[in-house]
Amino acid sequence: MKLESFVQGEWSQGKDTAEVRSAVTGDVIAQAMGGGVDMHETLAYAREIGGKSLRQLTFHQRADMLKKLAQYLGERKEQLYKLSFDTGATRADSMIDVDGAIGTVFVYASKGRKELPDARFLLDGAPEQLGKGGTFFGQHVVQPLRGVAVHINAFNFPCWGLLEKFSPAFLAGVAVVTKPATITSYVAHALMRMIVESEILPAGALQFIIGQTGDLFDHLTCQDVVSFTGSAETSQKLQRHPSIARESVRFVAERDSVNAAILAPDAAAGTAEFDLFIKEVAKEMTVKAGQKCTAIRRALAPQAQIDAVISALRERLAKVVVGNPELESVRMGPVVGLDQRRDVLDRVAALRAEAEIVFGNPADFNVEGADKTRGAFVPPLLLHCANPVRASNVHAIEAFGPVCTVMGYDGLEQAIALANRGDGSLVASVYTHDPRIAADLVFGVGPFHGRMALIDRDCAKEQTGHGSPMPHLVHGGPGRAGGGEELGGMRSLHHYMQRTALQGSPEMLTRVTGSEIKAPSPAAN
Amino acid sequence: MKLESFVQGEWSQGKDTAEVRSAVTGDVIAQAMGGGVDMHETLAYAREIGGKSLRQLTFHQRADMLKKLAQYLGERKEQLYKLSFDTGATRADSMIDVDGAIGTVFVYASKGRKELPDARFLLDGAPEQLGKGGTFFGQHVVQPLRGVAVHINAFNFPCWGLLEKFSPAFLAGVAVVTKPATITSYVAHALMRMIVESEILPAGALQFIIGQTGDLFDHLTCQDVVSFTGSAETSQKLQRHPSIARESVRFVAERDSVNAAILAPDAAAGTAEFDLFIKEVAKEMTVKAGQKCTAIRRALAPQAQIDAVISALRERLAKVVVGNPELESVRMGPVVGLDQRRDVLDRVAALRAEAEIVFGNPADFNVEGADKTRGAFVPPLLLHCANPVRASNVHAIEAFGPVCTVMGYDGLEQAIALANRGDGSLVASVYTHDPRIAADLVFGVGPFHGRMALIDRDCAKEQTGHGSPMPHLVHGGPGRAGGGEELGGMRSLHHYMQRTALQGSPEMLTRVTGSEIKAPSPAAN
Repeated sequence: MKLESFVQGEWSQGKDTAEVRSAVTGDVIAQAMGGGVDMHETLAYAREIGGKSLRQLTFHQRADMLKKLAQYLGERKEQLYKLSFDTGATRADSMIDVDGAIGTVFVYASKGRKELPDARFLLDGAPEQLGKGGTFFGQHVVQPLRGVAVHINAFNFPCWGLLEKFSPAFLAGVAVVTKPATITSYVAHALMRMIVESEILPAGALQFIIGQTGDLFDHLTCQDVVSFTGSAETSQKLQRHPSIARESVRFVAERDSVNAAILAPDAAAGTAEFDLFIKEVAKEMTVKAGQKCTAIRRALAPQAQIDAVISALRERLAKVVVGNPELESVRMGPVVGLDQRRDVLDRVAALRAEAEIVFGNPADFNVEGADKTRGAFVPPLLLHCANPVRASNVHAIEAFGPVCTVMGYDGLEQAIALANRGDGSLVASVYTHDPRIAADLVFGVGPFHGRMALIDRDCAKEQTGHGSPMPHLVHGGPGRAGGGEELGGMRSLHHYMQRTALQGSPEMLTRVTGSEIKAPSPAAN
Repeated sequence: MKLESFVQGEWSQGKDTAEVRSAVTGDVIAQAMGGGVDMHETLAYAREIGGKSLRQLTFHQRADMLKKLAQYLGERKEQLYKLSFDTGATRADSMIDVDGAIGTVFVYASKGRKELPDARFLLDGAPEQLGKGGTFFGQHVVQPLRGVAVHINAFNFPCWGLLEKFSPAFLAGVAVVTKPATITSYVAHALMRMIVESEILPAGALQFIIGQTGDLFDHLTCQDVVSFTGSAETSQKLQRHPSIARESVRFVAERDSVNAAILAPDAAAGTAEFDLFIKEVAKEMTVKAGQKCTAIRRALAPQAQIDAVISALRERLAKVVVGNPELESVRMGPVVGLDQRRDVLDRVAALRAEAEIVFGNPADFNVEGADKTRGAFVPPLLLHCANPVRASNVHAIEAFGPVCTVMGYDGLEQAIALANRGDGSLVASVYTHDPRIAADLVFGVGPFHGRMALIDRDCAKEQTGHGSPMPHLVHGGPGRAGGGEELGGMRSLHHYMQRTALQGSPEMLTRVTGSEIKAPSPAAN
C-alpha cells in the first residue's frame, strides 16, 4: 500500500519513502510516500481555490455538505475498522475513532443548521450605542479568515483527529490542509480517499499531506491557523517557529495531559460511585491501550480507600485479555509501535522512581493470538505512589500507554492541590454523590481543567466517560495540556474567524449587516 | 522625582537608576529607580494575597470597587494632566489618556453590574443534553484563573494603558502586575500613587514595576496571562520566551499596525464624507503627535481624488501649530523623546524610498514656546506614494509619529487589496454614504481588521473617531497588529478566566452551578 498526499486537486506521490509497520505483527504494511509537495502552492490553492468556494456558501450550505459527508462515510466505515486493527485498535477502540469521527461531523452539521444563520457571517453580541443621540453604534461581526487551517494530528485517532478538526474549520468557511501522523496514516489515507471519491466537498476544501510538512510554516500568514495535537515537545517547537510570532498566526495546541480521576471522600467502597470509579479507571487504562490524551493517568482516592481501590482495580485488570485486536476475546491491543512501547516503558521507569507497580509486569504477561516479540504489546500497569505530595514525576510524566498511578490524599484540600499539580489538564473526573463536594472540586480544580465529569449513580447509565471529548463541549486544557480549545459546539468556529467591531450610524450598520441595529431596549439588559 | 515600584504592599526603590527626560525641554525630570524586585515573590503575592481576596468577591463587588476608583481618580485628574505636558501631550491629548482611562474603568464598572451576575463564576452557553434519557448533561462554566495578569504597557498612554488592561482583569478576579514604559512612567507612577492612596483595592490586586521585568517571565505558569502593548520586535521576543510555549501562558499582543483610512468612490470632493475623511486624517496625524497604535498611516483615495485630497490635507496641516503643549495655541507637541524622533525620521526615510513628502519638512519648521534643538519635535509629514501596488514599505513600516502616506487606488477591489497589504491592522475607517460600498469593504477587509469605522454624514456629529478604541468594542487586530483582542466589553474578561465543560446529571449540575440545568425547550433553539 503506497500512501500519497492529496494536494492541488491531485494525488501526489513523493520520494521520501517511510515504512509503516503493523503494531500487531511488526510487518511493513504501507509505504508513506512523502515529500515533493510545494507547500507554498498548496497553501495558495487552499486560500484561493478552496477558501474562495467555501466563502461563497452559507453556514447552512456547508452544514448540509457535512451531513452528506457523514452519511457517505457512515456507509463505508467497515473498511476503516478493518484497517485499524493494524494500529492496535480493537473493534471497540475503532468505534471511538471511526464512529466518533462521523458522529462529530453529524453534530457539526446539525448544530450548524440549528444554531447558525443561513448567512456568510455572524453577528456577535448586541449592538452598543456609542453616542447619546442614537446616531452612532457599534456591532461586532464575525467572518471567515482568508487563510488556511493547518491541522497536524496525533497517531491515536487517525479518523477522529482529522474530522473533529476539519468540521469546525469547514463550517466556518476555511479550507484545510491536514497532516496525519505517519505511523497510522494508512487509516487517515483511506478516510481521505473516501472523502475525495465522495466529491461532496468543493475543490481545495481539504488537502492531505503525507510525511513531513517541510517548509510549510515559513509560508504562514496572519490569516492562517495552526491546530496541533501531539507531544508537548513538538508542540513547543512549532509554537516557537518564527512565523507564528511574526505573523501572529493563531496556534491551537492539544498536548500532554496528566489527567486525574478523583474518588471523593463520600464514595467509600460499597457505594455506587466507588464502583463507577474503579470501572472508569480500568476502562481508561485499557481502551486504545491507554493511548488517549484524555486517559486517566492519576487515580486519586482518600488514603483510607487506597487498599480497596488497588484491590478492586487488580481484580478488574486481571480480566483484561491482551493480544491481537482482531480477536473478539481480546480486550486490549498493542500500543502503536515498538518505539512507542519503548517510550512507554521508559516513562514507567521514571514513574517507578516515585511509585511501585502494584499490578502488571512488562517482562511477564500473556498475549493472545499474536507474537509478543514482534508486536508492540504492553500489559496494563498500575502503580501506587505512597507520597504524592513530595513526588513530582507522577504529576508531570505522561506514559502514553496502559499506565495509571494510584495515589492517596488526606482531605479534600490536598486532593485539589494534587490534581492541580498536573499543571493544566484536559479533563478531571470526580466520583461523588454529594453536590457540596462536587462544587468544592469544580471550583478548586476547574481553573486547571478544560472539562470535568461529575460521575455518580444518577448519570451512570448515560454518562459518556472520563475520556471521551464530546463535540458539544470544549476539548482542551490549560498549561501542560497546551492551552487550546477544540470542539465546544459552535465555539470552535471562532478559531477560524475574525471578529471585527463595526462602528457607524444605525442606518448604515443595518444595511451592511442586514439586521436591524438599534439600542437594546432597557428590558433586554 | 524618584520613581519606585510598588510590590508586595510597599513602595520599593531599586538601584538601577534611569534618567527620564522631558519631551519638550530635554531636561531630566525623574529618576526611574528600577531593580531589586524579587519577581518570584511579587508573582506569588499577586496569586496568593491579591488573587485570593479578589476571588472571594463577586463580579458586582469588584464592579463597585472599579466605580469608586474611577470616581476617586476623576477628582484628582488635574495632577495627571499637568505631569503629562512633559510627555509632549497637549491638554486635548491628555483627555484621551486620562479621561479615556477613567471612562474605561467606569464602563467596566457599569457593564459588570449590568451584564454579569452577582456571582463568582459565569455560566457559558446553554446546557447540552448528552443522553437521550435526560440523565446526563453538559454545562460550561467560566471562572477566574489562579494566576497573575502581567501587563506590559507602551509609552503613549501611561494612564489609559494601565487601566484599560487592569479593569477587565480585576473584574474577572485576577490580580495584576503592571509595568509602564520607562519614558513616561512618571505619569503612570502618579496614577499608581493615587490608586494606592485611595485604599479602594484589596492588597495585592495591583502591583507596579518600574524598570526592567528581570526574570519575571521565568516564573510564569499555566494560570498566568501576559498582555503586551508595544513594538512588534519586543512582542515577538517575549512571545517566543520558552516559558510561554512550555507553560502555555496566554499571550495577548497589541503591536505595530499600518492602519488605513479609505475614501470611497462615492465620496468625491464636495461631499460631506470627503470633508470627514480630510478632517479625520489630519486629526489622526496630529493627535498625540501621531503616537497612537490606531492612527491612520495610509490614506487611500480614488486616483481621481488624490490631488484634491493632498490639497485639502495641506491646507489643514498648515494650520497646525507645533510647540510647547502647555500653550493653548499649540495643537501638537513633540514626540516622546529624542530617540523616538530619530526612529520616526529613520522610518520616514524608508518610506521616502517609495513616496515623496508633499507636506512638511523635518529640517525646517516652526516650534512655538519651546527650543527645537532640545525638544523632540517633528512636524506633520504627509507623503504621497504614486505606485502603492508595487510598493512595500508604505504598507509595512509604521512611523510612530505625525506621519501619513496618501495613496491612490483604481477601483474598489484594488482598495481592498491595498488595505489588506497591511497584513493585519487594528482599525480601518471607511468614508462613504453608500451602504453597498460599505458592505463590500466590510466583507473585503474585515478579516484583516479588528475594528472598522464607517463614517458618514449621519454619524458625523457623534462618531468617536478612527483612532479611539471604545471599551465596549474589541481593540486589537490580526497579524502585524499582534493577533490580540483587548476590551470589547465583557469579552476581555475571558482572557483571565478558564472555561470548563462540566458533565453530570441535571440534579448534580443544578446544585453545583446554582442554576437549573435542563434541556433547552425546543422553542429556545
